[in-house]
Amino acid sequence: MTHPSPATTIPIGITENILVNGIASMIPLSTTEGALIASFSRGNKLLTQSGGVVSCAIDNGYTLSAVISLSNLEELDQFQTHLSQPSLFESLSLAVSDSNPSLCLGDVESYIVAQNVSVVFRLRHRTSSFKHIQSKLITNLLKIIKKSSPVSFTLLSIQTPFSSSSSPSVSNIVKPSGFTVSSDVVIPAQLLQTVMHVSPQTFLSLNQKKNYLGSSLACTLGGNNAHASNALSALFLACGQDMSLIPTCSACFLTTELTDSGDLHVSCTMPSLLVDVSSPLASSVQKSLITFLLSDEKNVFPPTTDSEMQEDEVIKNANKRFAMIAASVVLAGELSLISSLAQGTLMDAHNALNRGKSP
Amino acid sequence: MTHPSPATTIPIGITENILVNGIASMIPLSTTEGALIASFSRGNKLLTQSGGVVSCAIDNGYTLSAVISLSNLEELDQFQTHLSQPSLFESLSLAVSDSNPSLCLGDVESYIVAQNVSVVFRLRHRTSSFKHIQSKLITNLLKIIKKSSPVSFTLLSIQTPFSSSSSPSVSNIVKPSGFTVSSDVVIPAQLLQTVMHVSPQTFLSLNQKKNYLGSSLACTLGGNNAHASNALSALFLACGQDMSLIPTCSACFLTTELTDSGDLHVSCTMPSLLVDVSSPLASSVQKSLITFLLSDEKNVFPPTTDSEMQEDEVIKNANKRFAMIAASVVLAGELSLISSLAQGTLMDAHNALNRGKSP
Amino acid sequence: MTHPSPATTIPIGITENILVNGIASMIPLSTTEGALIASFSRGNKLLTQSGGVVSCAIDNGYTLSAVISLSNLEELDQFQTHLSQPSLFESLSLAVSDSNPSLCLGDVESYIVAQNVSVVFRLRHRTSSFKHIQSKLITNLLKIIKKSSPVSFTLLSIQTPFSSSSSPSVSNIVKPSGFTVSSDVVIPAQLLQTVMHVSPQTFLSLNQKKNYLGSSLACTLGGNNAHASNALSALFLACGQDMSLIPTCSACFLTTELTDSGDLHVSCTMPSLLVDVSSPLASSVQKSLITFLLSDEKNVFPPTTDSEMQEDEVIKNANKRFAMIAASVVLAGELSLISSLAQGTLMDAHNALNRGKSP
Amino acid sequence: MTHPSPATTIPIGITENILVNGIASMIPLSTTEGALIASFSRGNKLLTQSGGVVSCAIDNGYTLSAVISLSNLEELDQFQTHLSQPSLFESLSLAVSDSNPSLCLGDVESYIVAQNVSVVFRLRHRTSSFKHIQSKLITNLLKIIKKSSPVSFTLLSIQTPFSSSSSPSVSNIVKPSGFTVSSDVVIPAQLLQTVMHVSPQTFLSLNQKKNYLGSSLACTLGGNNAHASNALSALFLACGQDMSLIPTCSACFLTTELTDSGDLHVSCTMPSLLVDVSSPLASSVQKSLITFLLSDEKNVFPPTTDSEMQEDEVIKNANKRFAMIAASVVLAGELSLISSLAQGTLMDAHNALNRGKSP
Repeated sequence: MTHPSPATTIPIGITENILVNGIASMIPLSTTEGALIASFSRGNKLLTQSGGVVSCAIDNGYTLSAVISLSNLEELDQFQTHLSQPSLFESLSLAVSDSNPSLCLGDVESYIVAQNVSVVFRLRHRTSSFKHIQSKLITNLLKIIKKSSPVSFTLLSIQTPFSSSSSPSVSNIVKPSGFTVSSDVVIPAQLLQTVMHVSPQTFLSLNQKKNYLGSSLACTLGGNNAHASNALSALFLACGQDMSLIPTCSACFLTTELTDSGDLHVSCTMPSLLVDVSSPLASSVQKSLITFLLSDEKNVFPPTTDSEMQEDEVIKNANKRFAMIAASVVLAGELSLISSLAQGTLMDAHNALNRGKSP
Repeated sequence: MTHPSPATTIPIGITENILVNGIASMIPLSTTEGALIASFSRGNKLLTQSGGVVSCAIDNGYTLSAVISLSNLEELDQFQTHLSQPSLFESLSLAVSDSNPSLCLGDVESYIVAQNVSVVFRLRHRTSSFKHIQSKLITNLLKIIKKSSPVSFTLLSIQTPFSSSSSPSVSNIVKPSGFTVSSDVVIPAQLLQTVMHVSPQTFLSLNQKKNYLGSSLACTLGGNNAHASNALSALFLACGQDMSLIPTCSACFLTTELTDSGDLHVSCTMPSLLVDVSSPLASSVQKSLITFLLSDEKNVFPPTTDSEMQEDEVIKNANKRFAMIAASVVLAGELSLISSLAQGTLMDAHNALNRGKSP
Repeated sequence: MTHPSPATTIPIGITENILVNGIASMIPLSTTEGALIASFSRGNKLLTQSGGVVSCAIDNGYTLSAVISLSNLEELDQFQTHLSQPSLFESLSLAVSDSNPSLCLGDVESYIVAQNVSVVFRLRHRTSSFKHIQSKLITNLLKIIKKSSPVSFTLLSIQTPFSSSSSPSVSNIVKPSGFTVSSDVVIPAQLLQTVMHVSPQTFLSLNQKKNYLGSSLACTLGGNNAHASNALSALFLACGQDMSLIPTCSACFLTTELTDSGDLHVSCTMPSLLVDVSSPLASSVQKSLITFLLSDEKNVFPPTTDSEMQEDEVIKNANKRFAMIAASVVLAGELSLISSLAQGTLMDAHNALNRGKSP
Repeated sequence: MTHPSPATTIPIGITENILVNGIASMIPLSTTEGALIASFSRGNKLLTQSGGVVSCAIDNGYTLSAVISLSNLEELDQFQTHLSQPSLFESLSLAVSDSNPSLCLGDVESYIVAQNVSVVFRLRHRTSSFKHIQSKLITNLLKIIKKSSPVSFTLLSIQTPFSSSSSPSVSNIVKPSGFTVSSDVVIPAQLLQTVMHVSPQTFLSLNQKKNYLGSSLACTLGGNNAHASNALSALFLACGQDMSLIPTCSACFLTTELTDSGDLHVSCTMPSLLVDVSSPLASSVQKSLITFLLSDEKNVFPPTTDSEMQEDEVIKNANKRFAMIAASVVLAGELSLISSLAQGTLMDAHNALNRGKSP
């Protein structure tokens, strides 16, 4: 048998412009489903015509965690007291900022099951080089804890489900990592009707019944949306993001309200967007797509500077911009699909279903 | 600005052979993280040297669902009675098999919130052409329900979170779609020690503490594994599967037991693997990788036959084989990562951590 | 030390009448928190003045389950085939109806992890004496499966989390046991304003933001309500229901809509209400309270008849009525608390918060 | 119709002694199910004969939360910056300790959906009088935030699902309130066999398959136990605890390991035990049962002191002791029921099931 070709190629489509915080971007999406590009373009156009999306991102930092085991439960009190010493926190903070001047330690928390303790470190200001130092850093932090610990313990694992990991976990919603992003817009009723052929009220009602009643009934967690993972996987694939984070990152809450003048106020909140536009794993095509996406009149990406701290700052801002764009494209996709479902339903209703009862 | 290139290219790595139900396969994985190929190869080799994986797949069929709204709650009793009429079920069954001779209707269930009813249809024997007929089919089924309904209702949406969708949902575990696959193996203690440098007991203990205690504490749903989504996203990408299904499909339970002779009995169960090797959305490279993966001495894929029913049968079997391979590769990845975590921990323990307490 | 007194006494309060499907009932609630009675009475009165609650209950039957272990995974296919034989289903059905003529077997499902199979039996028409026969019945059903099974298996446990149990479980929402009850009402805007001092719009908005956005964000499952467990525990305690089922039974979805005329359409859906008004565990006071609650001009409870089947029918209807009352009282409590929160917020806003920004 | 009697009476049973951290206690349980007392007594005896339970409790403090709404998303950044000002934290801390000298503010966190912000306050050292001041305190804290806020906001509700509430919520596991308690013991194999008629290995295997594999498959959250809510509801009822907290408090992880000598190391961890032994809502019988349970040679409860701070200290310790006893009694109940299930299964196996395959 001949050996297969050395690379998968996935077509790239470029959507219409979307205006996010006043800057217009065309979005590269990598997907074999051509219809998606048209669908997202339709949403982007609607958002742009409505005056553009306002997006706001909060940087939650990054989480490292390890699970250790005490010799016995009697020593738990002593260990917990040790863990909460201000002097220990100082030592740990120092170790974090020593590993990289752009990092600082936010807090240290612990979770108990029997004599096993999951220790969770929240770091602020993730840097581009973070992924490469994380194993070394957490091992180092545990050494510091052990050195001054009044009780001995065994290290079980330097990864736990509390870290930003590839398993989807509720802790990623209740204790978010990466960026929490919210993108919102007010869409004039007339425009929504013209472009999407639905009224604000119909859109709101379908969102409420499908994405809240329906999702609660089907017991989704973070699944209060129609197809966030569709946009996210196409964008992540185009821009070299970690595909195994899709289950975590695609948590998404779509909210809808009517304004006093009857327009549609719609927003999309994503609690845990873990993105890294400087990932060394991106291929050259993916790197060029990131540059295409993030460079504009004011910004150039990747940064061209000699200072590591300045470079980190540019990357941090670029990650934030990328996260805001991601949530906005997801919003465009929601507008498009939900309108289409509502419209199809209405059409069906007119064409066929309502005749069911007539003779 | 110049327009970006028309396709993302992601490198393809081919792993060592893995023996699944007696047939050896090399696995194409599409990822920019080169270390993954080595890691999965290591796991595949261990599985093959242990005599190969036994895999078993149960076909749960496919789920369609819609949500409708009654005029008022008083009519709910009547509607539920209507929905449970054997004569209605017969009409619905007929409509399903008319749409495609390879399909049959399994059951019809309903979920209530207020006067809104989510109607869920379970179909058996999903066919290759299913994706294209689903909107038309569910619209048709609702027309049939409406035609003879004693009470009127409004169609709200022909998609709900109860369908096999791109939002991860608990209902996909408790009411699985696609294949439920379990792959298992007994790994001799000596072999595990030689290849992975851990004992069965250490492996079992880490699985229990990280993937069960840890995952329960972090409130994951279906997240009782170390990195199932890593394997799955690389395999799905290589073989043209729907990337937006990763959140749903990567639910995975890794189980471990010691045999009487002290060897490691390990298995991987994935409740909802939605795969379609005949997807028309696969690119030509992806199609060739599916052929590379699924063709062996006994089988040729894609099928070459004039009969649609025969073709459906071949595709159904190929989907089953693909699902069994997927769960087995995930198992390989779990063996590799968990061993590595355990080994790293042990090494750290010897090198550094245990010295913490000494003067 | 002297021995404590032989019984806990919890005060009983009797609420104002609530009209459920045209029949008025005063509700006995057992609680030491006196304010609750006033609060529920306020809600009951509002519901009654609005014309009363319409309630609809669907009997999901009762679930038995066991987990067994096959010798190895290779035999899973054979076992699943065995489990789906129509002849086996007939034998199992016969055994169920032999155990009690009021029972029949609905369906048999199975869930797989590795070679462990959870077998779940859905029974229709739970009878009063069910609790006493369940251990014997499930043991018997497993014997029948084993007798004709082509492969051997080991019984691990005759209870699993898939049964209606004392651990709260998502499966109780997605695969409900007991009654699924929905109670709804339209409350005129004027009346809501007069009695509860809130507008329909304010009530709806708070329900949406607290019980849907808030509950999704805090990752509750079945927790789309303000304090369903409050009403339920006081009612269950007064009427001798199993207190350990509160975590399962208190799942509750509160929904709100504005009618075209601007009134508040509000409903309360509880997916898994497991109730048994004939429980032999009820104390004599509790039994008298059940009689007080369920007896009216048309009905007498407990039934006075010689026929076991007639008795089962009366009990079945009484259980249904009790479930409908329970969901309606929960609705009353939600109206009262949410209005109070909204009103308090408004009051605070007027008194204090709005002055925050002024000099 | 005559009015029903003014109180529900539930029988109280007193179990055998259980030794927790060296102090023996007989446990009052209020239940109409007489068999429970015998079952828990059996477990208590086993625990005591094994040398008693070691229990460890961590005080997580108490959570207050409110949800507010900003005028628009643009102001979110400013609001978040305001919320993280050290000077604001100082003002809030002062307000907390002014409300009661035993309280201090731990941290302030926020959760975002659209322009709605849930603000969560963690308080340390809950005092006896806490319940009465909480509405006033949170209203006061919000006034302080508003006073110096650069942007205006509207208060939506002074309760959210992030507070310790009567809706069960995952956030109570990932962000625990009240006490996190772990109780553990090593039970000699011989003793387990003699008293419970099971081996450590059988017990461990059933716990793993029922409470971990089974519970993960049925998607329970915090439900890794057999019947924690049974013990808890009987104890809470006897001792005047808030019954509506049962869904939250009964989250419980049962863990099992074999020691090197083949004995059973078993532990019970409950993440969010919200208890208040000084609740003014307890009836006089309930108060006497608390005194019966918590008074021993060294301690007297309720405290007799003139100093409010001393009184708070005694109550805090009594709450901690009560929480440790609660987790220990739950452990006793788990030992009893799981052994009984395993034993019944074995017996069945011997009597009947194993004959299935013989001619």
